[in-house]
Amino acid sequence: MYKLYNVKRWGSISAHLVLEELEVPYQNVWLTAEQVRAPEFREISPLGLIPALGLSDGRAIAESAAIVAFLTDSHPDKGLAPPIGSDDHAQYLSLLVFMAVNLYPSINLAFDGGPLAETEEQNAAIRRKGGQHSLGVFDILENRLAEDGPFLLGDNYSAADIYLFMLTLWAYPSERAVLERYPHIAKVAEHVRKRPRLKAALDAHGALAVQTAEAA
Amino acid sequence: MYKLYNVKRWGSISAHLVLEELEVPYQNVWLTAEQVRAPEFREISPLGLIPALGLSDGRAIAESAAIVAFLTDSHPDKGLAPPIGSDDHAQYLSLLVFMAVNLYPSINLAFDGGPLAETEEQNAAIRRKGGQHSLGVFDILENRLAEDGPFLLGDNYSAADIYLFMLTLWAYPSERAVLERYPHIAKVAEHVRKRPRLKAALDAHGALAVQTAEAA
Repeated sequence: MYKLYNVKRWGSISAHLVLEELEVPYQNVWLTAEQVRAPEFREISPLGLIPALGLSDGRAIAESAAIVAFLTDSHPDKGLAPPIGSDDHAQYLSLLVFMAVNLYPSINLAFDGGPLAETEEQNAAIRRKGGQHSLGVFDILENRLAEDGPFLLGDNYSAADIYLFMLTLWAYPSERAVLERYPHIAKVAEHVRKRPRLKAALDAHGALAVQTAEAA
Repeated sequence: MYKLYNVKRWGSISAHLVLEELEVPYQNVWLTAEQVRAPEFREISPLGLIPALGLSDGRAIAESAAIVAFLTDSHPDKGLAPPIGSDDHAQYLSLLVFMAVNLYPSINLAFDGGPLAETEEQNAAIRRKGGQHSLGVFDILENRLAEDGPFLLGDNYSAADIYLFMLTLWAYPSERAVLERYPHIAKVAEHVRKRPRLKAALDAHGALAVQTAEAA
């Protein structure tokens, strides 16, 4: 049975929603930020990364995009990803990794440049650059949806849409600002929020409704 | 037939080596850095990212880790990745994405912090931080190989080892310094260099031998 190491509104929300969509049995382990920082968690996830997914052989893997792809590809009958080996599956993997490499870290930097800064001034500059870069990536995704939507894979809803939804939750300068700026992305987020199977998990993460607070 | 948009010693080397290992037909399109920066290439790869892989349906995908996973999973009989859905396949995807998200960008930043900097001083600070972070990730991979090697997936050579080899080519402060510091990673790189099927492609990228020049 899978074991999901889960923190509210963190990167584990994508894996959590995918597990709920797939309707496969799993153990949900809620952690606090403090528990994630504890040395014991490094035994599970070497960089202390959330999410981690425990496997049936006792080991665990990290990286949200890898966890999402592994889960959907392990349950191809559930239709949450295109058939393996198809050109659409290539698009699917590319989108997941594209968002994980280019969007996820730049959103993080938009709110905290600390990992790359030595002074407060540097931190502020990195935050500005990270925020700009994240909007450039959202631009690309919005254009794709406008041309070939309504979902990232055209007519077919997939776990890539769940991944995009997760990133809107954290978006710079705020979730609401990004949803207003990008109507096609907003429709994807709205669709995910309306999936009956996801209601309980969304509620647990406090993500059923758009947040109203603006980022500092 | 696949079409690989390829630049010497850039991120396309991983996809190039995987295509050679798989012995599948593909068209190799060498590009210069200038051609990559040209607006026409954005039609293929929206962020101008190398590698891009053209698919049989005429579209293309970006992101080296996604391209590698797509290629190996489309040709499971070639044994370059564990069986889809297995716990080892979860490890495989996690390693690819882990390296793509945590190591690849920090090596890039170690040599040029420009994308996140507004001044030369900030650039220098980001380069220091990026370099330190990249060594922290190499530490984790070296420990994994020391405990459960000789390959990233234990006894089984996979495309994840090719991906790691690629990252050693660019490593901070230099390829040679990293190979000397990490003997288990050096053994993986040595193995990749000795694969008979890879000789011609390695030669084309100028990667048959360890580079001697130190980074500035």
